[in-house]
Amino acid sequence: MSKLVECVPNFSEGRRPEVIAAITEEVKKVAGVTLLNVNSDASHNRTVVTFVGEPQAAKLAAFNACAKASELIDMEQHQGEHPRVGATDVIPFIPVSEVTMEECVQLANELGQEIAGKLNIPVYLYEAAAKTPARVKLPDVRKGEYEGLKTAISSPERQPDYGLAQMHPTAGATVVGARQFLIAYNINLSTSDVNIAKKIANSIREVKGGYKYCRAMGVMIEDRNMAQVTINMVDYNGTPLHRVFETVKSEAARYGVNVIGSEIVGMVPLQALVDTAEFYLRLEGFDRKQVLEENLR
Amino acid sequence: MSKLVECVPNFSEGRRPEVIAAITEEVKKVAGVTLLNVNSDASHNRTVVTFVGEPQAAKLAAFNACAKASELIDMEQHQGEHPRVGATDVIPFIPVSEVTMEECVQLANELGQEIAGKLNIPVYLYEAAAKTPARVKLPDVRKGEYEGLKTAISSPERQPDYGLAQMHPTAGATVVGARQFLIAYNINLSTSDVNIAKKIANSIREVKGGYKYCRAMGVMIEDRNMAQVTINMVDYNGTPLHRVFETVKSEAARYGVNVIGSEIVGMVPLQALVDTAEFYLRLEGFDRKQVLEENLR
Repeated sequence: MSKLVECVPNFSEGRRPEVIAAITEEVKKVAGVTLLNVNSDASHNRTVVTFVGEPQAAKLAAFNACAKASELIDMEQHQGEHPRVGATDVIPFIPVSEVTMEECVQLANELGQEIAGKLNIPVYLYEAAAKTPARVKLPDVRKGEYEGLKTAISSPERQPDYGLAQMHPTAGATVVGARQFLIAYNINLSTSDVNIAKKIANSIREVKGGYKYCRAMGVMIEDRNMAQVTINMVDYNGTPLHRVFETVKSEAARYGVNVIGSEIVGMVPLQALVDTAEFYLRLEGFDRKQVLEENLR
Repeated sequence: MSKLVECVPNFSEGRRPEVIAAITEEVKKVAGVTLLNVNSDASHNRTVVTFVGEPQAAKLAAFNACAKASELIDMEQHQGEHPRVGATDVIPFIPVSEVTMEECVQLANELGQEIAGKLNIPVYLYEAAAKTPARVKLPDVRKGEYEGLKTAISSPERQPDYGLAQMHPTAGATVVGARQFLIAYNINLSTSDVNIAKKIANSIREVKGGYKYCRAMGVMIEDRNMAQVTINMVDYNGTPLHRVFETVKSEAARYGVNVIGSEIVGMVPLQALVDTAEFYLRLEGFDRKQVLEENLR
């Protein structure tokens, strides 16, 4: 078992396959890094790359991909629906195993310094790596986008965290940070009344007094004629899956409704499953190194 | 993610470190195999080696270790408390991931043929690989041990499955097979009355009408003044952890006793934790490839 971070850089190119391939090639080339997914969107003109690896290897892969993007993408020519400030728009690091959030913040700082120092691209730090509350949320950091930031960058409140207060002439600026792994989680109800799903969603949403790390909505799944609570678990350590599941079950019962199932959409870290088993089986002293497969990395 | 089997060969040597090291070195040398544990017992004069790997790599490692043991261990000189029939006494293959029991049975047959053909050691197949019901249980196959089998091997009912009906002059015979992963699982009760633990154990034991793949006893954990149901889950696919846990909880309630915790002793395959989470979260359509770490092997 080894230290493992996930890194999900977003690049401002979703139309030219050869450019996307050249950028992802930089990730694949780095030993100790595994490319998990590449998702390009032509109308957004943007590509989201997901890879995991040992922290220093992940940092190197992120730097090399960012350097390649700064060569091949000219923000002066870039158009797309998605907000962006640079060729490499945003690079979050996410702790996966044996790594703390603090280490990911440190990694974001190291990478930010390198990008600013070696590539002359100004860097902003966001989310857990933010140095002021005003820069925690990505939309706040990205305000005005590439075009607006060209002049705004020189104002005192928009100075970058690393590098000169001047946009790179073609690559713009880059936002680097650290955040928790997001689990997309849906809970299906034995009702076709979407209002019940909405009420239950309100009971678990942070903004309505629910769980701190829970974003939720009630929606209708038309093809199953079924109401669903659709959830973003933005920190499964702070608000675990089982607690949200049990609360939804209990709130549903109040309407005479049952939970008929739940779905994890996309990836889930092993730790979230270990935590679930620990809760329900009331496990004492369990160590994830006891998971056989954990000894094979 | 790749096909993965566990292999747990037992060697009739627990006293000479240089011999044990030479045997385990044969396992370490094979690419695609990871040595997990080596457990030697001097009074048993026996060493249990645990490794995992891709099926063909695991077979090669098992063969090479068996060949080395046949060079270095002389059964004519061997004494120890544990029953045994050969230098390499027993070699079970255990499916871990992406591998069926049938594939492990096939692997046992291939290995048995090689050991008999290349090393002139007669091979018996046991457990899931057994060709007759009389050879399913290891103690039945090992009846008479090394000394007794020297003459018994020529009787029709003791003919080996592979090789001549004649013991190797120093390495004896070897038992090869396939079985399920065994999970050692304890459930702790809020009582110091061991009779309650014994009654609950009886409710889940196969021999008393309980679960087919469940061996259980009620015991007293003196230092915690606590009764415990101690369980061997001999096939967690056939009888899953959660079902045993829930039954123990329900049977305990009948005595006014609570389950205060449970313990997994040693290794557990990831699949058993995935199954637990699937049950309790009522997961729909979950694929273990969604476990992030599964993409790194």
